[in-house]
Amino acid sequence: MSRVRMGMVGGGPGAFIGAIHRCAAALDGEIELVCGAFSRDIGRSRQTGEALGLSAERIYDDYVSMIETEAALPASDRMEFVAIVTPNKMHFPVADMALRNAFHVFCEKPATFDLDEALKLRKAVLDSGCRFGLAHTYIGYPMVQEARARVAAGELGEVTRVLVEYTQGWLSSAAVAGKEEPSWRLDPKQAGASSAMGDIGVHASNIAEFVTGLGIVSVLADLGAVVPGRELDDDGTVLLRFSNGARGVLVASQICTGEANNLSLRVYGTQGGLEWQQQEPNTVVLKFVDRPDQVIRTGDPFVGAGAQAFTRTPAGHPEGYIEAFANLYRAFASDVRQTGNRPAWRGQVHVPGIDEAVRGMAFIESVVASSRDQSVWRTMGEAV
Amino acid sequence: MSRVRMGMVGGGPGAFIGAIHRCAAALDGEIELVCGAFSRDIGRSRQTGEALGLSAERIYDDYVSMIETEAALPASDRMEFVAIVTPNKMHFPVADMALRNAFHVFCEKPATFDLDEALKLRKAVLDSGCRFGLAHTYIGYPMVQEARARVAAGELGEVTRVLVEYTQGWLSSAAVAGKEEPSWRLDPKQAGASSAMGDIGVHASNIAEFVTGLGIVSVLADLGAVVPGRELDDDGTVLLRFSNGARGVLVASQICTGEANNLSLRVYGTQGGLEWQQQEPNTVVLKFVDRPDQVIRTGDPFVGAGAQAFTRTPAGHPEGYIEAFANLYRAFASDVRQTGNRPAWRGQVHVPGIDEAVRGMAFIESVVASSRDQSVWRTMGEAV
Amino acid sequence: MSRVRMGMVGGGPGAFIGAIHRCAAALDGEIELVCGAFSRDIGRSRQTGEALGLSAERIYDDYVSMIETEAALPASDRMEFVAIVTPNKMHFPVADMALRNAFHVFCEKPATFDLDEALKLRKAVLDSGCRFGLAHTYIGYPMVQEARARVAAGELGEVTRVLVEYTQGWLSSAAVAGKEEPSWRLDPKQAGASSAMGDIGVHASNIAEFVTGLGIVSVLADLGAVVPGRELDDDGTVLLRFSNGARGVLVASQICTGEANNLSLRVYGTQGGLEWQQQEPNTVVLKFVDRPDQVIRTGDPFVGAGAQAFTRTPAGHPEGYIEAFANLYRAFASDVRQTGNRPAWRGQVHVPGIDEAVRGMAFIESVVASSRDQSVWRTMGEAV
Amino acid sequence: MSRVRMGMVGGGPGAFIGAIHRCAAALDGEIELVCGAFSRDIGRSRQTGEALGLSAERIYDDYVSMIETEAALPASDRMEFVAIVTPNKMHFPVADMALRNAFHVFCEKPATFDLDEALKLRKAVLDSGCRFGLAHTYIGYPMVQEARARVAAGELGEVTRVLVEYTQGWLSSAAVAGKEEPSWRLDPKQAGASSAMGDIGVHASNIAEFVTGLGIVSVLADLGAVVPGRELDDDGTVLLRFSNGARGVLVASQICTGEANNLSLRVYGTQGGLEWQQQEPNTVVLKFVDRPDQVIRTGDPFVGAGAQAFTRTPAGHPEGYIEAFANLYRAFASDVRQTGNRPAWRGQVHVPGIDEAVRGMAFIESVVASSRDQSVWRTMGEAV
Repeated sequence: MSRVRMGMVGGGPGAFIGAIHRCAAALDGEIELVCGAFSRDIGRSRQTGEALGLSAERIYDDYVSMIETEAALPASDRMEFVAIVTPNKMHFPVADMALRNAFHVFCEKPATFDLDEALKLRKAVLDSGCRFGLAHTYIGYPMVQEARARVAAGELGEVTRVLVEYTQGWLSSAAVAGKEEPSWRLDPKQAGASSAMGDIGVHASNIAEFVTGLGIVSVLADLGAVVPGRELDDDGTVLLRFSNGARGVLVASQICTGEANNLSLRVYGTQGGLEWQQQEPNTVVLKFVDRPDQVIRTGDPFVGAGAQAFTRTPAGHPEGYIEAFANLYRAFASDVRQTGNRPAWRGQVHVPGIDEAVRGMAFIESVVASSRDQSVWRTMGEAV
Repeated sequence: MSRVRMGMVGGGPGAFIGAIHRCAAALDGEIELVCGAFSRDIGRSRQTGEALGLSAERIYDDYVSMIETEAALPASDRMEFVAIVTPNKMHFPVADMALRNAFHVFCEKPATFDLDEALKLRKAVLDSGCRFGLAHTYIGYPMVQEARARVAAGELGEVTRVLVEYTQGWLSSAAVAGKEEPSWRLDPKQAGASSAMGDIGVHASNIAEFVTGLGIVSVLADLGAVVPGRELDDDGTVLLRFSNGARGVLVASQICTGEANNLSLRVYGTQGGLEWQQQEPNTVVLKFVDRPDQVIRTGDPFVGAGAQAFTRTPAGHPEGYIEAFANLYRAFASDVRQTGNRPAWRGQVHVPGIDEAVRGMAFIESVVASSRDQSVWRTMGEAV
Repeated sequence: MSRVRMGMVGGGPGAFIGAIHRCAAALDGEIELVCGAFSRDIGRSRQTGEALGLSAERIYDDYVSMIETEAALPASDRMEFVAIVTPNKMHFPVADMALRNAFHVFCEKPATFDLDEALKLRKAVLDSGCRFGLAHTYIGYPMVQEARARVAAGELGEVTRVLVEYTQGWLSSAAVAGKEEPSWRLDPKQAGASSAMGDIGVHASNIAEFVTGLGIVSVLADLGAVVPGRELDDDGTVLLRFSNGARGVLVASQICTGEANNLSLRVYGTQGGLEWQQQEPNTVVLKFVDRPDQVIRTGDPFVGAGAQAFTRTPAGHPEGYIEAFANLYRAFASDVRQTGNRPAWRGQVHVPGIDEAVRGMAFIESVVASSRDQSVWRTMGEAV
Repeated sequence: MSRVRMGMVGGGPGAFIGAIHRCAAALDGEIELVCGAFSRDIGRSRQTGEALGLSAERIYDDYVSMIETEAALPASDRMEFVAIVTPNKMHFPVADMALRNAFHVFCEKPATFDLDEALKLRKAVLDSGCRFGLAHTYIGYPMVQEARARVAAGELGEVTRVLVEYTQGWLSSAAVAGKEEPSWRLDPKQAGASSAMGDIGVHASNIAEFVTGLGIVSVLADLGAVVPGRELDDDGTVLLRFSNGARGVLVASQICTGEANNLSLRVYGTQGGLEWQQQEPNTVVLKFVDRPDQVIRTGDPFVGAGAQAFTRTPAGHPEGYIEAFANLYRAFASDVRQTGNRPAWRGQVHVPGIDEAVRGMAFIESVVASSRDQSVWRTMGEAV
């Protein structure tokens, strides 16, 4: 079974998430990195590519030359998809050119700089017939798949209440004291309209919709910059209303001093509740009134098809963040194979794509608009 | 050391909280129940009093005759304070008459039916020179006292973010299916303007203010009745703004199916964070950026004076809800002794009184008003 | 319902466990402390009695005069049972004299100084027709009762494996540095043959037998004094063999630096497992192979009669160590009432008595003998 | 940087651990699988190799032809090391031949079939000048490295007590009901003298020695087959004595129904204690008497060099079992590069090798001998 060939844009020296993408793509031995344009600085791009063992002619100076050159290679050699791990501002231009050249795209979140770009991206994806995958990594955890399956099976009854949080402390005063501000994430020209919502809140809205199977229809937000001098928010709360009328609340904050990467989701329904926490991702708890709470673990023999497809080890061998990420890559690579009519693994899993891309950008824009307007309720919009 | 003499209004057969008040008052052997009017049903009042070993002449038919009769007894015999454990509607009339007759009052929360009554109660307390204690039980946990002490000592720096939740599931669809609705708590004529906020949200706002040492100055709320047919809300979220500008969010819900009594508090500051959870109340966690998180336990030798005063057992012997409640009773009884110039135990503790009573009612009213007005920001008001 | 009248021997100033006994006896308002001989130092005995509000004539100089004097009082006035909270050495003499004078006895563990005394005590109890209760406090937790019920109902299948631990750090080098050694617990003349096993190991063997419903039939032990200079052990491990052949291991240690009071029990059977931990006592977890683990909590509506009888509050209101202790006192007081043909509360609970007293002492002696003999297997003996 | 070339013996269809080895080797992109003899069944070997994308001429029928053929290839093409993932019985013959042909070896544990083989293997390693790595995977967790560093730095004082457990339930009656017994692990001809100790107990002894920096000098064991009809044990407890006199206890069991892969380690010293659990591997807790317990997490900025070298993601992104495994592979590959005078990554980490191989086999043999001889103390032997 030949590997799926990947090119990368972004991910040069010091870029945390690029290295993670490469580990995740490598894990199952089904994807091969064949080329890259890793930095706008040509020297740094070459340095990265060489350390990764790429041949010199497939380390490119920029994404334009990469896409053009690769498109001209024989079909059996050229990359099959592009992984985009640049700052947000560059996601759309790279993805758009790749799609126009018939390359599939796997992209970091948030999908684009703003909602307008996301709508254009959706059109480009549909026009191209190519696959678009979005790195909502947390969907790749087996117990998140299981949570969705349990809700879909009606074990909670009708969903009535959602509590979702994503708290970090890496931008708190104590964490940034004496250091430079992270270059692009707090810059509205590169990151977009929100830091807290664009970087982490959009993960939270995505997982809430994914697990409940419901859409967020309106939001009311209170955002702010807690650390003085920032142009973008670093903290916010959003009241949610879901498509079935259920109430929700979403907290996203980068200034919760002492928190690491604390994404948690609780969903309650007429018949039961569930809880999942990213920092201990291999358990999901179901809660009931008239019988004991249930603890389900990655690798348990009775979990659903989605969780099984995303599990490599027997119960009790913790599957971590990179495995979750690798699950998305593996499913995406399988989709790419199918497009090419090659045999493909395909677990029964749902992974994020262009629809989630558009919804995420609509969420960010609606939230920012609500907060600017003294926290009024905003609908997420017809287009979405 | 003679015991402080207590009378009780409410707490008849089947009243959960009345029995808890009696256990809590009994625990340390410093308070003696000497009389009571336990139910509006005379037979039930007598049944309760006899089971408690009270002499027949001190089991009263109603609170009016109890207060009048006790006031006429010799000072060395008559009750010294009244514990009020009736439905909310009756708190003020009983407390007011007791205070007018120079009896101290220890009252269930919420303090009164509405804010107007709370303001009257404050005047009555001040006029009487008597003590008023409020059953914000969770303040009685040693680790809540410790949390307050740590914040006050500046270990978190300036408080920037507060997350407080109180979720229960006992009024969810699954929990109430086939049963009668709890008689008075969902009745606006007896409970007041809110169920979720009056029964549990007010505990959450109290503990948030207690631990941070900050006042809530404005609120924005989204309340609702999730189970169809209810006149009062059973679920709500409140955005908070504290006196120093810090953002907060408060969730209070009685329909989170599968949750028992899940009060939790997280406070973040410029230098650190803290977390406390009522269901495992004997630990508080301090979180930092540049050094390990710290876990502090009830009974640890290095805790502050408040936590020490509220601890009976060595570390590792869990102190529970009744002990927390007993701590408030013990501190209140000590206050009563001091008023009477008798020797009194007095740990260095802060316990809720009339100020917290007024703030709590103002919180409830502001929240209800905000929610009714499509979730606008409301200030808590000058009077408070 | 008149209270049951209690006298106390031991529990003077500074004696932690005496004060806990008094709180536990007071909690439910069903027991009244009427007399005591609190210290061998007469002044300290009086000081304690007066602080507790006892009348001067019922504060005694020693247990002999107390028992003699009380025995001469009218039946309606005199104490009904004696609570013994002295060092181990005095348990038997006090209990024996009390039983001979027809007083019931509630005694701290270990029941006696050695096995020989325990066998004599059993005879004295049987001869007297009185009740004997033993303060194996942890049996008083609702979830320990539930654990026993679940095993008895066969939910784990046949028990095959037991892991029980009781670790503390209060006698570790770090804890005792610069302090005096605790006076009597490390003195073989007052404490008996073992510190670690007599003080805490015997709790562990008791709870293991209680929950499994199986007897320990043989032991192999490795004890030692970790902190130099001690005459008694402060640490040990015991291999266990139960009556059905199941293997077990018991760890009891007072030198596990940083542990507070870490009693935990795990039981495995052919069909399932269970886990309970004293420091978070309100949950018990059942573990299975082919279905989710179950978490059961104090107050859950579906627990058995034993757990229900020992619960005062709704789920989510933590019941602590003193409540567990009070459960034993309440059940014992009920037994005393029944002996006197008075109406009595009686939940369907099993509480420790003279059989557990004898088994505990046999366990300690067998363990010490095994360890002294280079860790050979020892049977627990026919007499037991 | 060219990849290190790996061959594999074992790991055919259905072999869980072979697939994990391949994922672990692939994760960091520094190792390339170039050949393999995956099964004694030639068809299955080819099937596996083809699915992995190997060219047909490097999928071998057996390890002998693989080693011979690879040894004859040009140095720049041939494999550099062999990963051995066969049943225990085959470890030594494969390793021995590989070493004689100057191939480095990375081997599953236990290292060999018995101690005699392990001693021969040590000689073969020393004679060859090659590297030998042993798959004690749990040493690859960052927080295990941190635990070792903290002990080595004296934060616990002198180690006085060790509690280590490895409990699983996959061989319990409930788990095996109606299924065939796992083919080779319970067969003394293939697995060696013990199942519980050979499969998991040896991990427990390894981690205890690794973290404490102490050697086990004598053991006393009680092993048995809980499920009837087994030739090898499935459960056991071992009393330990460490080189400094500290007591320990080790539990290894495959019949703890409901447990998944529950390896835990607690170490106590004169000044503090520590706890680590494999199922939540990203935290280690330090425990103290006179100051708060400390929680340290993977990715915390203040951890030591070993933990940092083994961490890929920021704090809060769980690193799992495969990452731990990959850490060992990465360190081993780096060692292989250094042997070849190529530039190599080398974090400051300690990973298991031939010394741990010999110690592990000596442990297993001593334990089995003690248990057979009615649980007598056995020294681990001079040779080790």
